Amino acid sequence: MAVQAVESSTGSADSAGSSVSLGPAVALSCRECGERFPLGPIFACAECFGPLEVAYDLPTGDPEGLRKRIEAGPNNIWRYAPLLPVPADVADKPNINPGFTKLVKADNLARELGVTGELYIKDDSGNPTHSFKDRVVAQAVEAARAFGFTTLSCSSTGNLAGAVGAAAARAGLRSCTFIPHDLEQGKVVMAAIYGGDLVAIEGTYDDVNRFCSELIGDPAGEGWGFVNVNLRPYYAEGSKTLAYEICEQLGWRLPDQLVIPIASGSQLTKIDKGLKELIALGLVEDKPYKIFGAQAEGCSPVSTAFKAGHDVVRPQKPNTIAKSLAIGNPADGPYVLDIARRTGGAVEDVNDEQVVDAIKLLARTEGIFAETAGGVTLGVAKKLLENGVLDPALTTVVLNTGDGLKTLDAVAPTTGPTAVIRPSLDAFREAGLG
Amino acid sequence: MAVQAVESSTGSADSAGSSVSLGPAVALSCRECGERFPLGPIFACAECFGPLEVAYDLPTGDPEGLRKRIEAGPNNIWRYAPLLPVPADVADKPNINPGFTKLVKADNLARELGVTGELYIKDDSGNPTHSFKDRVVAQAVEAARAFGFTTLSCSSTGNLAGAVGAAAARAGLRSCTFIPHDLEQGKVVMAAIYGGDLVAIEGTYDDVNRFCSELIGDPAGEGWGFVNVNLRPYYAEGSKTLAYEICEQLGWRLPDQLVIPIASGSQLTKIDKGLKELIALGLVEDKPYKIFGAQAEGCSPVSTAFKAGHDVVRPQKPNTIAKSLAIGNPADGPYVLDIARRTGGAVEDVNDEQVVDAIKLLARTEGIFAETAGGVTLGVAKKLLENGVLDPALTTVVLNTGDGLKTLDAVAPTTGPTAVIRPSLDAFREAGLG
Repeated sequence: MAVQAVESSTGSADSAGSSVSLGPAVALSCRECGERFPLGPIFACAECFGPLEVAYDLPTGDPEGLRKRIEAGPNNIWRYAPLLPVPADVADKPNINPGFTKLVKADNLARELGVTGELYIKDDSGNPTHSFKDRVVAQAVEAARAFGFTTLSCSSTGNLAGAVGAAAARAGLRSCTFIPHDLEQGKVVMAAIYGGDLVAIEGTYDDVNRFCSELIGDPAGEGWGFVNVNLRPYYAEGSKTLAYEICEQLGWRLPDQLVIPIASGSQLTKIDKGLKELIALGLVEDKPYKIFGAQAEGCSPVSTAFKAGHDVVRPQKPNTIAKSLAIGNPADGPYVLDIARRTGGAVEDVNDEQVVDAIKLLARTEGIFAETAGGVTLGVAKKLLENGVLDPALTTVVLNTGDGLKTLDAVAPTTGPTAVIRPSLDAFREAGLG
Repeated sequence: MAVQAVESSTGSADSAGSSVSLGPAVALSCRECGERFPLGPIFACAECFGPLEVAYDLPTGDPEGLRKRIEAGPNNIWRYAPLLPVPADVADKPNINPGFTKLVKADNLARELGVTGELYIKDDSGNPTHSFKDRVVAQAVEAARAFGFTTLSCSSTGNLAGAVGAAAARAGLRSCTFIPHDLEQGKVVMAAIYGGDLVAIEGTYDDVNRFCSELIGDPAGEGWGFVNVNLRPYYAEGSKTLAYEICEQLGWRLPDQLVIPIASGSQLTKIDKGLKELIALGLVEDKPYKIFGAQAEGCSPVSTAFKAGHDVVRPQKPNTIAKSLAIGNPADGPYVLDIARRTGGAVEDVNDEQVVDAIKLLARTEGIFAETAGGVTLGVAKKLLENGVLDPALTTVVLNTGDGLKTLDAVAPTTGPTAVIRPSLDAFREAGLG
């Protein structure tokens, strides 16, 4: 069956609710009550206030044809366009084109950790702005176009503003992003360099969020797509591409175990959704897989709930070097708990020292310099191996979702030269290096 | 004709001079006097002290078969293994696997610059350590293996040490790299994070270089491959892959004009070598192309010589924000002059303000955050267009060889929020944003 794509009649922001051209996406559906809504820039169920997600009419019935079509596609996420809420001609439109990042077979690391099966790092530092956020923002760009939005926006602690700025610049959209006023200069530069409007808000990140919610309801925010608010259902689907790529790069094979970071929990739930879709489409064999969630101890609401056997996630005040995961009240926390339990996985956390150790371990064994979030996933993988929860004989994929260049401060205090010497062979020998 | 590969008998460091397994590479040849030497860890002609480069027995005669073989290869530089000094099974060995980075069609930028032809950015920020250096270091790793070296080394101002550290870690080699003692902390972290020995030398970069030359002649340096000294002929060949990728990504087509940065000048000369190889092999049509070299005004010895009509390059003391190009006495300067003149190109320079403006222009139009070297190439491209030297109607490729994240200081003073406001709609409107 071919991909269904309904043409948009107007393409204007007023078309919310009317049919738009977003490929196989046919509706939004409430994850709580199942109520369906026409595709539009909405994110909460009008019936029960539950979160909305994209529902599809996927191209079933010819897995071999679909696989060939994907493999003939571009070396970026748009090879999976038939499975994403984007128009069929998405690859021809200007977009930041993230994805198809390296799946690194980590043999050195496996040896060091005592893993006898295959161990892989899915390394998303190779994306255009060096984090997985490019995947989700690229979807939001297409949704913004479909709904006729002309400004792309977000609330951010820095990284997302950079990803939005870059994607908007390429797409020819205006961007106006919002950050707290007291960020480090490096993050401000990353958010500002792409030339869109960057507004620093005198307040905390919560204040920034509240302000953005106000703006969405105000005439000043008309025609604005907030990637992580009114475009969130489309945006979030970008994380499915991590699942697709991992399986394709394994030779259209499901891994046995995945270790995924948890911030809002959205990435983990969408990877699970992506894996289930591949099974349903016949692109991979239907077999069990286990999903493991990783948090930093200083922000571990989901891990705490998992260990206590709770279904409810109690919010925490974050205090960790893993700032990209520091969401104290993760919206998808309960869904993460469901998935970890359903698949036979777990949720675990590591402290900041273990995060730093894991960053160094990955750099030393595989030459990959991970963001703190990558230190969290590898640190948790190591802990779960030591506790006998992860099976060392199976095929395991650990996600690194960002780049160490963005979180230099985390490792700087403990990373430096082996020796400082005069430029002489004697000094070299005295330092025990010759 | 198939690729010739002579098996190494010993694989030890003593095999210098004996036959080693480096794919189509058959000898080293002097660029000055043409004298040939067996493949080994040497870099200067024993007859005339001229620089040595790799000579090949390339797989001629079946361009269609070669093209298919390349296209079926991995999504990294090893797809071009039949044209590089590496063993035929290189893709199966652990290496950092750089390359096949994006060639971005820069339509927004073209519009802004008045380019009516096709304009592309070859964006090497997508490499594992986010610069083109991964390409050259990856070759050095294979040469080090072939010569039985167990330690990979270099003198560096930071970036190269990081690339060497990462590549050595993945390859399972020891690394010991040398930097001046007074680098910024960020660069030290990047050089140290991969866990090899990092030695800070109390002195300037020149002192570091002198010390490394001493070490090569000393028993303490036995079994050491210095990527930019005794492995330099192999290392330098990595830049050819930029030429291969650009042509393949254009649909096996030569661009009309290329704008390439000049540090030592090696990258530019090897790109020219790569283009000539593709023509000789019948992989692209034999037609003229023009090569343009780009320097920063604060370190413009080649540009100065070009404009003065000299064949000799007079050394300069560098003073520019484009630190990765700040080589005052570029070894390949005279070859660059030859190539620019032979192909009908030019060498031009821009000042630091123009470098920063070009970085911002590229970010604003295409969402690419370039290193200062990328600001130099785009700044020069802009200047050459304004002067009528670059033809706006032709197909032009501008290289960005690094990542803006590594040279934040260059843009930080002039890159910040549009406005700083209280979190209220009134304040938003007062700032003229609503």
